[in-house]
Amino acid sequence: MSPRASASAAAETRSGIVEAAVDQASVEGLESVTIGRLAGKLEMSKAGVIGPFGSKERLQLATLEAAIDRFRHDVWEPVEGEEPGLKRLEAICDAWLKHLTGNTFPGGCFLTQTAAEFDGREGPVRDRIADYSRLWEKVLAKETRTAVENGELPKGTDPGQVAFELNALAQGTNQAIQLRGEAGARDRGRRAMRRAIGLD
Amino acid sequence: MSPRASASAAAETRSGIVEAAVDQASVEGLESVTIGRLAGKLEMSKAGVIGPFGSKERLQLATLEAAIDRFRHDVWEPVEGEEPGLKRLEAICDAWLKHLTGNTFPGGCFLTQTAAEFDGREGPVRDRIADYSRLWEKVLAKETRTAVENGELPKGTDPGQVAFELNALAQGTNQAIQLRGEAGARDRGRRAMRRAIGLD
Repeated sequence: MSPRASASAAAETRSGIVEAAVDQASVEGLESVTIGRLAGKLEMSKAGVIGPFGSKERLQLATLEAAIDRFRHDVWEPVEGEEPGLKRLEAICDAWLKHLTGNTFPGGCFLTQTAAEFDGREGPVRDRIADYSRLWEKVLAKETRTAVENGELPKGTDPGQVAFELNALAQGTNQAIQLRGEAGARDRGRRAMRRAIGLD
Repeated sequence: MSPRASASAAAETRSGIVEAAVDQASVEGLESVTIGRLAGKLEMSKAGVIGPFGSKERLQLATLEAAIDRFRHDVWEPVEGEEPGLKRLEAICDAWLKHLTGNTFPGGCFLTQTAAEFDGREGPVRDRIADYSRLWEKVLAKETRTAVENGELPKGTDPGQVAFELNALAQGTNQAIQLRGEAGARDRGRRAMRRAIGLD
């Protein structure tokens, strides 16, 4: 094999391990992703699974990054072309609900799951989830601020409050779907989100 | 030891194991509660820890029941004496926020944590969390319905929607506190909950 083909094969192997880890983690949590389980699922040796990462923590961090990529792909990328402000905020809510009710993660929202799992721990995994969660709230608050500046939302609107509520409603929608199997969860989530951004 | 004293000592041992398990589970998840860790923490033998339960699953179920008891103690018992309807709904929100910001669970809301952990699994632990979650939504919806009947909330109010939103907002408040350490989380949660029940 040429060095280039070998590097590309290595990247493919790494990515296959990470994608299997994301799916597993979304169902039973990041801590449930053990080298042994992945090796069994991928029909690889344990050394082959851990090799590209070097440690379980580095595998967990790579898994988290891949999950964040899936979230961004579903919820941010489709709305980037929208007009900043209320239009984009509305598009974010729609894309987010589609993401929560779709099949991106077999076990439902990865970030909600992993946040609950790691919020009582210390270390780089928890720090990365917390940072991404803060970043996402900033994105939501920024669009709200733009909507206020555009005159699309009333002057008194508190962007941080809107971001807080949207985040909460996404979590609640995910729980209603995943835990209680509520048929109307998406509609309830949509109604609540639209009210939170001053529509309806 | 008389039979009665011995039965009471056994109940005390059992309860000590369960309370330690609740605290541990609220920080790192119910699956993190292993017989070995509990034995180490309580300075007991592994056989002594598992003995009163018979299986890990039965210990998990007992842990869940004890956590539900703590939730009821904090959020339901203080409001039972309130007038049914809007007054009680308001009291529930206050008690709930106090519960989320207090020290009932060292790792934050046990039910949010365990729901996220078990919603992708099958079995009696998941079923019990889902049932309790449904029951709690019914309690919230019932108080909302009473508030509408009392004329305290507008006729068009959808009790299921209010229950859905309150539940979501509690989850979001818990994540803001536990994951992001947001100083204003309680105030944001309170503002959002009061808006969800038609106040403010």
